[in-house]
Amino acid sequence: MNLFPRTRFVLTETSHPGNVGAAACAVKNMGFGRLVLADPQCGVEDPRRDPAAVAMASGADDVLSSALIVPDLDAALAEAGITLALTARQREFGPPRLSPREAGAQDEGAEIAFVFGNERYGLPNEAVDRCRMAVHIPANPDYASLNLAQAVQLMAYEARLAWLEAQGAPRSWPVESGFVGVPANHREVEEGLAHLEEALVEIGFLDPDNPRKLMPRLRRLFARAGLEREEVNILRGIARSIIEKRARR
Amino acid sequence: MNLFPRTRFVLTETSHPGNVGAAACAVKNMGFGRLVLADPQCGVEDPRRDPAAVAMASGADDVLSSALIVPDLDAALAEAGITLALTARQREFGPPRLSPREAGAQDEGAEIAFVFGNERYGLPNEAVDRCRMAVHIPANPDYASLNLAQAVQLMAYEARLAWLEAQGAPRSWPVESGFVGVPANHREVEEGLAHLEEALVEIGFLDPDNPRKLMPRLRRLFARAGLEREEVNILRGIARSIIEKRARR
Repeated sequence: MNLFPRTRFVLTETSHPGNVGAAACAVKNMGFGRLVLADPQCGVEDPRRDPAAVAMASGADDVLSSALIVPDLDAALAEAGITLALTARQREFGPPRLSPREAGAQDEGAEIAFVFGNERYGLPNEAVDRCRMAVHIPANPDYASLNLAQAVQLMAYEARLAWLEAQGAPRSWPVESGFVGVPANHREVEEGLAHLEEALVEIGFLDPDNPRKLMPRLRRLFARAGLEREEVNILRGIARSIIEKRARR
Repeated sequence: MNLFPRTRFVLTETSHPGNVGAAACAVKNMGFGRLVLADPQCGVEDPRRDPAAVAMASGADDVLSSALIVPDLDAALAEAGITLALTARQREFGPPRLSPREAGAQDEGAEIAFVFGNERYGLPNEAVDRCRMAVHIPANPDYASLNLAQAVQLMAYEARLAWLEAQGAPRSWPVESGFVGVPANHREVEEGLAHLEEALVEIGFLDPDNPRKLMPRLRRLFARAGLEREEVNILRGIARSIIEKRARR
């Protein structure tokens, strides 16, 4: 079953409405749509309608306005099978710790919840302990100040990537790399190189009596690239132009 | 050699000083410190000292204030060996396309540049073509509105992760044919291509009034190979021979 509709991002005790909006944008740009606000501390009546939240959501107003507000973490997690707490703290005990990459790949077909803490104090231990797993973003230890929306962005990205990979989708580009030419076959490459060599002799760059390592070097360059048929044609076109111009003198 | 001091994040034609600050924060929390502003369009005298930039940098003021301002992309990339353009556009030609994960793992010990475009129109094709590789963040196709700082954050995260992973298992050099040359840097490649173009015009193979896709195709071929300094010298030697022979007639 599709990952996206059964994944929720739970923001716990968030203080700034702008961060709620930015989080809505971050989850939506990775294909998700469910935001849950557990015990929001924004000091406004409805953070979903706050101007700062709306401004930061920029286009993700649907995700923002449909966010669920619940009184506490338990209510936010109720039907979830996999619960993952994002935390920067290291603790001796507590749930197993995963990297965001490992966390993104956690999927048993169940409801999934990624849980984020308050901007200033993060998730209290009691909240982390209520989750099955803890997730640690391996940031710069001297400046690990990812803000809430940045953490949501990274986690949503990893979850999306894990899902795309599980589908067997090509990671690099949605449509199998836009343009890929037909690879030249061995004979085409050899004929192209012979043609090029002829032109290089013609302009005096290659001395047949003292060829040194020129052709082996060019072979190595083209082998690394893996020539396409059309590229061989271009190289032969260049060789032909060189030879014809010289002959016409 | 440590990845972090030899990696730069190039922001091209950025319009909002706040995004420069947010980008400073994003690179610093992943351990990086070099920001380059190519032709900033912020409409302020110095985006590094703009109040909105300083506010968004929150703790990354050192990265912000030491950002380099340069007039154009070539100046920003000059000594870089690996240049990666972040782009959402799909194109028929242009450099090879990588996922952020693949892009983060590109490392030959050279200077690395990640290049980001303007908030509204991204990177123009000419800018993407000047980079060795293009990077596509596999966002939600229906709402791929990652903002600049979010894109910087994801790319910095992937580069950091690839580095951390590589420290666990030292990366072996790509050994083909026992020989690995010194990679050419951006300026050397650009000068080589300009020289080659001049020669192709000289022999009439390239019509400046109707260049079609010749140079983009050659760029793509060479980008795939990853030109070495010695190979650029060979290409320039060929170009020089062509031009000299024609001049001598």
